[in-house]
Amino acid sequence: MQIATPYLMFLGDVPDRLAAKTAYGIVDWRPEWCIGQMRLPGCAADLGIPDLTLPEALAKGCRTLVIGVVNAGGVLPDHWVSEIVAAIKAGLDVASGLHVRLGAIPAIAEAAQANGRTLHDVRHTRESFATGKGTRRPGKRLLTVGTDCSVGKKYTVLALEKGMRARGLDADFRATGQTGVFISGRGAAIDAVVADFISGAVEWISPAADPNHWDLIEGQGSLYHPSFAGVSLGLLHGAQPDAVIVCHEPTRTTMRGVEHALPTIREVIDLTLQLGRLTNPDIRATGIAVNSQALDEAEARALLAALEAEHGLPATDPVRFGVDGLVDRLVAEFPETAKS
Amino acid sequence: MQIATPYLMFLGDVPDRLAAKTAYGIVDWRPEWCIGQMRLPGCAADLGIPDLTLPEALAKGCRTLVIGVVNAGGVLPDHWVSEIVAAIKAGLDVASGLHVRLGAIPAIAEAAQANGRTLHDVRHTRESFATGKGTRRPGKRLLTVGTDCSVGKKYTVLALEKGMRARGLDADFRATGQTGVFISGRGAAIDAVVADFISGAVEWISPAADPNHWDLIEGQGSLYHPSFAGVSLGLLHGAQPDAVIVCHEPTRTTMRGVEHALPTIREVIDLTLQLGRLTNPDIRATGIAVNSQALDEAEARALLAALEAEHGLPATDPVRFGVDGLVDRLVAEFPETAKS
Repeated sequence: MQIATPYLMFLGDVPDRLAAKTAYGIVDWRPEWCIGQMRLPGCAADLGIPDLTLPEALAKGCRTLVIGVVNAGGVLPDHWVSEIVAAIKAGLDVASGLHVRLGAIPAIAEAAQANGRTLHDVRHTRESFATGKGTRRPGKRLLTVGTDCSVGKKYTVLALEKGMRARGLDADFRATGQTGVFISGRGAAIDAVVADFISGAVEWISPAADPNHWDLIEGQGSLYHPSFAGVSLGLLHGAQPDAVIVCHEPTRTTMRGVEHALPTIREVIDLTLQLGRLTNPDIRATGIAVNSQALDEAEARALLAALEAEHGLPATDPVRFGVDGLVDRLVAEFPETAKS
Repeated sequence: MQIATPYLMFLGDVPDRLAAKTAYGIVDWRPEWCIGQMRLPGCAADLGIPDLTLPEALAKGCRTLVIGVVNAGGVLPDHWVSEIVAAIKAGLDVASGLHVRLGAIPAIAEAAQANGRTLHDVRHTRESFATGKGTRRPGKRLLTVGTDCSVGKKYTVLALEKGMRARGLDADFRATGQTGVFISGRGAAIDAVVADFISGAVEWISPAADPNHWDLIEGQGSLYHPSFAGVSLGLLHGAQPDAVIVCHEPTRTTMRGVEHALPTIREVIDLTLQLGRLTNPDIRATGIAVNSQALDEAEARALLAALEAEHGLPATDPVRFGVDGLVDRLVAEFPETAKS
């Protein structure tokens, strides 16, 4: 799956910003792909990019209508369907993050068929994966892992991609979740893959590459999360990371959605390296990324300094303080990947 | 999903015994459910049970036509479809282990709809699972784990079910694979569940029970298998086992389908207990089951004695030497589960 870019962002008439969270994430990280937005009367979200009609979007080169919104009730309203069909007839592909499959809506399926357009259901990959092979493949790989779900794993690899490219490193973000797939135009929502193919899907997401190329692979869940540890382990084994960055949110007390206590950063590092050695004996931890938004700046800096001292690893909040320390460590540990 | 019993076993015209492996497994473990077989001209398999026509099968009380065979090429031949449709019209449900969904074949879907019969696609559960919660639930649970795939995990729990029931214990086999689902009439093929729901599916497969009741949960894969360790970990966390039995095949040198070396039994015990504590801090190993068919009897007995001495656990080949030692240990460690 490769989603054709650039995008026309469809917001429908969502009642608030939160319903368009995926769309905002795409605009944040790929502004150059997001040529314009299409909103219906009553839409409460605004991506801050031009409102375009279909002819305007086509004239500007848009290739895909992106539905990066949540629809109430899980059913696609008729007035959205007619807009989507009009976009297909005008010549756009459609990529959707909705739970309902585009192809399950007859009017949309028929329009795509009749006009030779492609429908992408990001939550329901059609890719046929092989089971993971576990054999090493060329290229360097970095994986973000976490003390919990939703602690900044995607944000950290995206910030690293930007920071590493700015320093001349050859680095690509590799998506394993819905928003990430829109941002990279490729990948798979790993939590929607059939269980037997998790590690194989990650081998597909991050294929063999130039030996000094970095794949920056978005982590999911946590090896300590009782609901999702299996996904995290399959992802770890498929990713075969050379480098791991641990992501953490310091004010959380229980893991998301369950009653279990959070593991320590030390526990996450130890278990990740222990289990990761199965497919990459050279795996090592190279940094810590903290989502510090609940702390004031002095508290955040004190916490990061303490973590650096405790673990001997660079620690940062990528949003607040950038990723320079993380990139410095990668360049120091893998000097062959630094161009010069 | 609950498959109605007893079964009429459909063998079609499979070219050899191997293609009917699932059917043989069902007859081995649930002979009382397998009233008869239905074979087409040219069939090379024979379950050793009566050949029945549809009217005969119905007269004997059969409720479900079971397709426990592999069809060449993955496409259901027309002459099988017409037999299946006839069975539906005669009043049978149909349960299939084929890759193709029964409901995807229009003639079968229409016949089921028109006659109010249920179609079970064992490889494609329709159950909507929740994500795992990780909270303890009443009842005792035993899980078989392995040094590899296909080392006797299903056979061991089935033999234990028989042996424990014979000793008056309250024990039920819980299926996590295709053949097992037919044998228990319930369960789910865990390797076909979407990744986010592995542990939740196992919580559903083995729900809260009487505190002294044993669920004997069929294991899958291995925590050391680079293709399937994620599945095995989700299964371990969802099962929350009190007792673990390690299954092993002593002549294998690399893990199935990959180039990785087999872990030792000690490594499997250690990692299983380490990771299993997340959802059951009281997890313990209670035995070792060896598939010794490649060894002569003296070799097998010597190996088992050595394993017992090394690990301080009962070791047996359940097929060759029974499960008495394994049950003795369970009764000794969990005396409250022994009636009388």
